[in-house]
Amino acid sequence: MDKILRIDMGAEGGPSLTVFPVGEFAGLGGRALTSAIVSKEVAPLCHALGAENKLVIAPGLLSGSVAANSGRLSIGCKSPLTGGIKESNAGGMASQTLAKLGYAAIVIEGKPKDGATYKIVINKDGATVKADNSLKMLGNYATVEKLAKEYGDKPCFITIGPAGEMKLSAASIACTDMEGRPTRHAGRGGVGAVMGSKGVKAIVLDDTGASMRAPKDPEKFKEANKMWVAGLKKHPVTGEGLAAYGTNVLTNVLNEAGGYPTNNFSIGRFEGHTKISGETQAALETERGGLATHGCHKGCIIRCSGVYHDKNGQYLTKQPEYETVWAHGGNCGIDDLDAIAMLDRLDDDYGLDTIEMGATIGVAMEAGLAKFGDAEAAINLVKQVGQGTDLGRILGSGAAVTGKVFGVERVPVVKGQALPAYDPRAVQGIGVTYATSTMGADHTAGYAVGSNILGIGGKVDALSPDGQVDLSRNLQIATAAVDSTGMCLFIAFAVLDQPETFQALIDMINAFYGLNLTGDDVAALGMSVLRNERDFNTRAGFTSAHDRLPAFFTNEFLPPHNIKFKVTDTELDSVFNF
Amino acid sequence: MDKILRIDMGAEGGPSLTVFPVGEFAGLGGRALTSAIVSKEVAPLCHALGAENKLVIAPGLLSGSVAANSGRLSIGCKSPLTGGIKESNAGGMASQTLAKLGYAAIVIEGKPKDGATYKIVINKDGATVKADNSLKMLGNYATVEKLAKEYGDKPCFITIGPAGEMKLSAASIACTDMEGRPTRHAGRGGVGAVMGSKGVKAIVLDDTGASMRAPKDPEKFKEANKMWVAGLKKHPVTGEGLAAYGTNVLTNVLNEAGGYPTNNFSIGRFEGHTKISGETQAALETERGGLATHGCHKGCIIRCSGVYHDKNGQYLTKQPEYETVWAHGGNCGIDDLDAIAMLDRLDDDYGLDTIEMGATIGVAMEAGLAKFGDAEAAINLVKQVGQGTDLGRILGSGAAVTGKVFGVERVPVVKGQALPAYDPRAVQGIGVTYATSTMGADHTAGYAVGSNILGIGGKVDALSPDGQVDLSRNLQIATAAVDSTGMCLFIAFAVLDQPETFQALIDMINAFYGLNLTGDDVAALGMSVLRNERDFNTRAGFTSAHDRLPAFFTNEFLPPHNIKFKVTDTELDSVFNF
Repeated sequence: MDKILRIDMGAEGGPSLTVFPVGEFAGLGGRALTSAIVSKEVAPLCHALGAENKLVIAPGLLSGSVAANSGRLSIGCKSPLTGGIKESNAGGMASQTLAKLGYAAIVIEGKPKDGATYKIVINKDGATVKADNSLKMLGNYATVEKLAKEYGDKPCFITIGPAGEMKLSAASIACTDMEGRPTRHAGRGGVGAVMGSKGVKAIVLDDTGASMRAPKDPEKFKEANKMWVAGLKKHPVTGEGLAAYGTNVLTNVLNEAGGYPTNNFSIGRFEGHTKISGETQAALETERGGLATHGCHKGCIIRCSGVYHDKNGQYLTKQPEYETVWAHGGNCGIDDLDAIAMLDRLDDDYGLDTIEMGATIGVAMEAGLAKFGDAEAAINLVKQVGQGTDLGRILGSGAAVTGKVFGVERVPVVKGQALPAYDPRAVQGIGVTYATSTMGADHTAGYAVGSNILGIGGKVDALSPDGQVDLSRNLQIATAAVDSTGMCLFIAFAVLDQPETFQALIDMINAFYGLNLTGDDVAALGMSVLRNERDFNTRAGFTSAHDRLPAFFTNEFLPPHNIKFKVTDTELDSVFNF
Repeated sequence: MDKILRIDMGAEGGPSLTVFPVGEFAGLGGRALTSAIVSKEVAPLCHALGAENKLVIAPGLLSGSVAANSGRLSIGCKSPLTGGIKESNAGGMASQTLAKLGYAAIVIEGKPKDGATYKIVINKDGATVKADNSLKMLGNYATVEKLAKEYGDKPCFITIGPAGEMKLSAASIACTDMEGRPTRHAGRGGVGAVMGSKGVKAIVLDDTGASMRAPKDPEKFKEANKMWVAGLKKHPVTGEGLAAYGTNVLTNVLNEAGGYPTNNFSIGRFEGHTKISGETQAALETERGGLATHGCHKGCIIRCSGVYHDKNGQYLTKQPEYETVWAHGGNCGIDDLDAIAMLDRLDDDYGLDTIEMGATIGVAMEAGLAKFGDAEAAINLVKQVGQGTDLGRILGSGAAVTGKVFGVERVPVVKGQALPAYDPRAVQGIGVTYATSTMGADHTAGYAVGSNILGIGGKVDALSPDGQVDLSRNLQIATAAVDSTGMCLFIAFAVLDQPETFQALIDMINAFYGLNLTGDDVAALGMSVLRNERDFNTRAGFTSAHDRLPAFFTNEFLPPHNIKFKVTDTELDSVFNF
């Protein structure tokens, strides 16, 4: 990981590829690297779909090593959805593969003039870019199937679906999982539209002949990784809970807490929650011959993913995540798991962020385009996106645009990005993260739900504004650091509760790179990432006025707690006081 | 004009009306008053379509008097198009009528819960609000026809069309002209959507029994008005040019200057310009029995408006203004005056801003929805808005949303509002106004075209960045003051060139109100208006990053001068140094 591949898609005479030493960006990985490059090299006021924007794809610091759960891939750019900086990360096989091939990052720049559809092929011999119009407007599933026919099933693929090609702001980038399916998405912020604007449909990554990355101190690294694995296995969430029911274990928990946003954030509890809970889902998956537990990438020991079969026992989609089940489920009043799984499949195939799409359908339902609870109507709405109809283009542009086009007032977005599956009135800490994150509303940017609801990393009362700013600040800093390691964010459950597991992570990094980092250094890294991102956003025109929830969260009471969001503007403005 | 009528559309038990003394807002009129109320009373982060926004309708300081050309009505709110403060003004009969009835302003607040369509009736006996669902979704023409049947043709009407009822961001508010036609629009910034969000379809203003407003010093006032009229008649633009050919006299002028934005701001000259010029238009109007000169309100002596008949000699629409002819004409490559007039008629009937719609169709053409030059396709696109189709809702949401939904990079907007009919690369002064105006791109906010192209108020080289910031600053200050008087902005041509005409205007205000204002006081008023507006926008989240033209104006050369926008960011940031 000592080189950066830069591809200028707009070069005269066709795309040009150049490999640079990592240089000034040495020592950075994942989000730290994507945000550093975007912040330094992208003009904050450029058009997100223009030649000036850059798509930066970076494995984490420990990706490509044998460190458990180190397979997250960061993808950064100026976001067409928020207008600010974006880092969206995904599991799947791409991060490990890219890291093993030695790339700290791929930077895709410029914009082709010919309107052709391109694929990038990277293997141990180097990289090439070729036009391949036969891939144009294929779904992600058909795309990877076609690529697998050409390149075999050994490589992994990074692809976009029709949504990305249409440059829609809710478009995701898919990474194939261990079975070669395009199920792991860098979903948020429209990164797929930026890839589409560069004319790039697919990246083929083949690590045949490449070795695992070797640590500087193999013995120490092995020892630290052992501690690391033990720590993850010991913690009840990473060791058992997530494996048993997947992330969707949260449906019943959040519903019980009254923080499960139902019918476009109108109520905090959903009557049909047991029908779509993780427990129900896992039982159904097992019964139909799918998988209730499964790892999304090699080296995962948490195994929170799964495989969802349809009524006939045929593969339909990967196990829908909690956020997806909520977005397409309770948020739209839908209590039918098969319908939700179908929506997940459609989103994955078209290349769409499931959170943004679920929130968007909720807004469309509020506008009267369909009734809350009408699963068939919801499926038809998402199909519009795949078909590229006018309505589909509206919906595929996300909740903010859909609200604007249909004159809806209750639109749950911050900085243009839809809120995930926790109502900020009943989980006030996550409200602070939604409001202030550099990413727009993003639960992964500082998962205060842990302390607010699950009692992980200490307990902060979910219904009180007290302590939420400190909580969110610390989590945002820690998360920015974790997102730079390539580690799956779920490791945070164990790291926050078990000091020795946190130390094992630091020991792994130190052993791998021959460093002597302390916990303070990790925090400093997180802060520097956030500073880079805030700086970009400030230059893009963001102010404290953008660090706010939509007015209805402070104006409307949320049942059953009948509570409003109570963290003050002054408190919100202190989140980045560090 | 010593009272303010406040209507709370969201009051329990139905709309409530209260008349207040003008109080702290005494001495303010037009834009100064709307911006003062909006800035003080509207939460900058509220949803523009929510109960918290307020629609403020205010005649100018001299409206309702015999002062020539004092009939502009200001309408203010938080804009659903820009997210910032908005003042949009219109001619027609409403301003004079409202002023004669004694109202400094009508403030429409709240939001009805019943979804009914309301009309407000104001006469010398007071004001009432009534539900009238028979008006729902009628075009502006059918609306005023129906109202005239009920209230006679003596009153004037302020109405919205279906676009406003659909709460689309390009929706205008129509004021009837001297013939009772809904042709004079407060077009910009989506004020019609705000009226629609309040459930108000129409305001009936009947000044039967009300007298003209009387000056404090009738003799001095009469004398000043005489000088005023003489000054307007003496100046070649206000005395002759505008009367002969209307505002569309500018087509040939701007085309010759190479600053006529053609095919979505790709070129500065349009091959078909002579076919749609003011000269051609006036001849056609006369030939068909329309009118090439006409006043849009009582007391107008400039008479730049007109009446456009179709091929059969039947009334089709008012004489399309220069901006409209450009927006639907050259900007879309269309050289057919009848098609442009039809587009103007449709916009007026649906209640849409012609500038925003023309720019939007240009963006749609760039997206490939129609070919540049295809008039029939353009008409069909605008008809979609009236029909409320999905595509119509996209287009009716303006150029920025349309660009986002269709993934277009070249979208000519500032702060979300479309650029008018002067390319900022060939008319660099107006580029400064577009970039920095509190209103979003707005030629009327500081009409540097006068000095850049027409040699009015001094000459500043249109192609050079030198002197443009000072020019725009002074014009923006002067305009904010003029917009507060009720005076039509075209008086500025005479006021800028003839010191004695400027003095006559000040003398009229002094004689009317018993004041001793100087030219400095007028400038101070303009500055205070801009400060109020900037303050609101800052609190709404605007920064210097929003005071910029879209990147393509600084990246792409404009033929025939092959020039880019050259005013630097630092210079732009000095516009409000006062």
